[in-house]
Amino acid sequence: MNVAIVGATGAVGAEFLSVLIQRRFPVTNLRAFASNRSAGTRIEFAGRPVMVESLAPGCFDGCHLAFFSAGKTISREFAPTAVRAGAIVIDNSSAFRMQPDVPLGVPEINPDAIRGYRGIVAVPNCTAIILCMAVWPLHRAARLQRIVVSTYQAVSGAGARALRELHEQIEAAAAGRALVPKALPYPIVNNLFSHNTSIGPEGSNEEESKVIEETRRILGAPDLAISATCIRVPVPRAHSESINLTFADTLGELKARELLAAAPGVRVVDDREHNRFPMPIDASGGDDVLVGRIRADPSQPPGRGLSLFACGDQLRKGAALNAVQIAELVTNL
Amino acid sequence: MNVAIVGATGAVGAEFLSVLIQRRFPVTNLRAFASNRSAGTRIEFAGRPVMVESLAPGCFDGCHLAFFSAGKTISREFAPTAVRAGAIVIDNSSAFRMQPDVPLGVPEINPDAIRGYRGIVAVPNCTAIILCMAVWPLHRAARLQRIVVSTYQAVSGAGARALRELHEQIEAAAAGRALVPKALPYPIVNNLFSHNTSIGPEGSNEEESKVIEETRRILGAPDLAISATCIRVPVPRAHSESINLTFADTLGELKARELLAAAPGVRVVDDREHNRFPMPIDASGGDDVLVGRIRADPSQPPGRGLSLFACGDQLRKGAALNAVQIAELVTNL
Repeated sequence: MNVAIVGATGAVGAEFLSVLIQRRFPVTNLRAFASNRSAGTRIEFAGRPVMVESLAPGCFDGCHLAFFSAGKTISREFAPTAVRAGAIVIDNSSAFRMQPDVPLGVPEINPDAIRGYRGIVAVPNCTAIILCMAVWPLHRAARLQRIVVSTYQAVSGAGARALRELHEQIEAAAAGRALVPKALPYPIVNNLFSHNTSIGPEGSNEEESKVIEETRRILGAPDLAISATCIRVPVPRAHSESINLTFADTLGELKARELLAAAPGVRVVDDREHNRFPMPIDASGGDDVLVGRIRADPSQPPGRGLSLFACGDQLRKGAALNAVQIAELVTNL
Repeated sequence: MNVAIVGATGAVGAEFLSVLIQRRFPVTNLRAFASNRSAGTRIEFAGRPVMVESLAPGCFDGCHLAFFSAGKTISREFAPTAVRAGAIVIDNSSAFRMQPDVPLGVPEINPDAIRGYRGIVAVPNCTAIILCMAVWPLHRAARLQRIVVSTYQAVSGAGARALRELHEQIEAAAAGRALVPKALPYPIVNNLFSHNTSIGPEGSNEEESKVIEETRRILGAPDLAISATCIRVPVPRAHSESINLTFADTLGELKARELLAAAPGVRVVDDREHNRFPMPIDASGGDDVLVGRIRADPSQPPGRGLSLFACGDQLRKGAALNAVQIAELVTNL
């Protein structure tokens, strides 16, 4: 299959390459696209060098599958071109996620919306994917009424430059030098801050709005009440989420643990005796969303409330892995 | 006034000394107590060296005021001795916090329970103090029904050794060396984890149970429904809390912001335009609890739900400052 990656030099782009190889995706020919700044450099795929190209007229001719992760402006401009050239586009940007005719795909949750689809399939926001993976098995069993989620989001979610800044600030902190923010608005080492996207009139930042809207769409629950607070923390990789749930039907803690243990793509890490629960260092680089601290919520009527803590690698299940899983479904691999 | 500090060489002990000086507390004579390991060393107070002593029979004779911050075992054993010797004890441990005849004091909230009291006054858990400071002005106006709080707790909350471990791990990470946990159960740099206190049968860890029980007691709201998830993050100082509130009466966002802006000990940091909200680096070393991200919660009926994000220096307002404020009230300064 002829595969294009748009945004090949970014944080998610690098993950696309490694996930394609890891899952033995049948790539006949790979083309890597990025901004003019990166064009002409080389990346490596399956042991061979690949020249990075600029997007240009005709660049998707002969392409079967195009993964986009270069921001919504690039997706808006070039994804329709790729589709017209005959490619299936799997788009990691927010450009098409809320468009009713574009599936918003999480293969473990809504495979029927994705399977055999032609055109653009959107990959949801990383925080929404991790949240949905953790709550879907429970929602199916007892219908969610409300979610209150607070996040602990990794720096690589803000891109490769922000991740370099985290490492540079760790070096600066070790040497006793001042922490000078450049890619991020504030120092991130020894600190944390509200997600640095703009705040709408109702008080949610863009990340929170995405979590709220996309979660409803992925779960097929348009009336689900969701409160989200998104915070950036000094962790390189893997988002964590503190999740409080209210159910319409009764769901006990033991049944919830059983359902989560049986859910594909979820791994229960919930060892109270040894105080071992989901942590970013354990979720990083892995495929599963880790779920733990599963407990009845004493602040709600018995059987109606649960709390969880989840961690997932937002570059993998939150982006590249989810995208390649979608590719497997649309191409019926 | 003759003042004793028990636990003088710990993370909170050092803060007692600096807060007493900063607030010009009338100390005639200061005695510093610590474990046998530290006895014989010297600390500095108001420019003079003070010899650290072991606790021993008669050590509180002539003492007017004793600040305890050496863990609940030491408090259980020695606080009653200090009271019998005529001292007022201000205890930062959890030993007496839920004892009905011991005031659980936050001077901005329940001064009448503290003023002129003789005996033991308990300083609440740091996370509970910061939570209560942020919600008290709102609770008074519209009666809280439910709180869902997720924390981002600083490493110094686990003591001076844990704080040194954070700095050592930053150096190790900068040098590319492995992060070896000693004081804490898991690596804390580039990571975060569920608060490492033991988990009770109902699934809450000890920190979460304290937040739930003590918040009810401080606010005088024994039936308040509270869900708490306590997480340790790689921040040296100042706890952060993502707080979701449900009210019995109507309270709008603008009124909430007004009430918080007028509350002593609270500073509203809520600049949506410049994306500036409470951060640990801004709360560290300060007296105020910073509150921001004040917004109506779209997941609740209009006027009944609010979300907030708060940061407070847990060694100061969460411990030493709150203790010295209590001392000022009990001694009618």
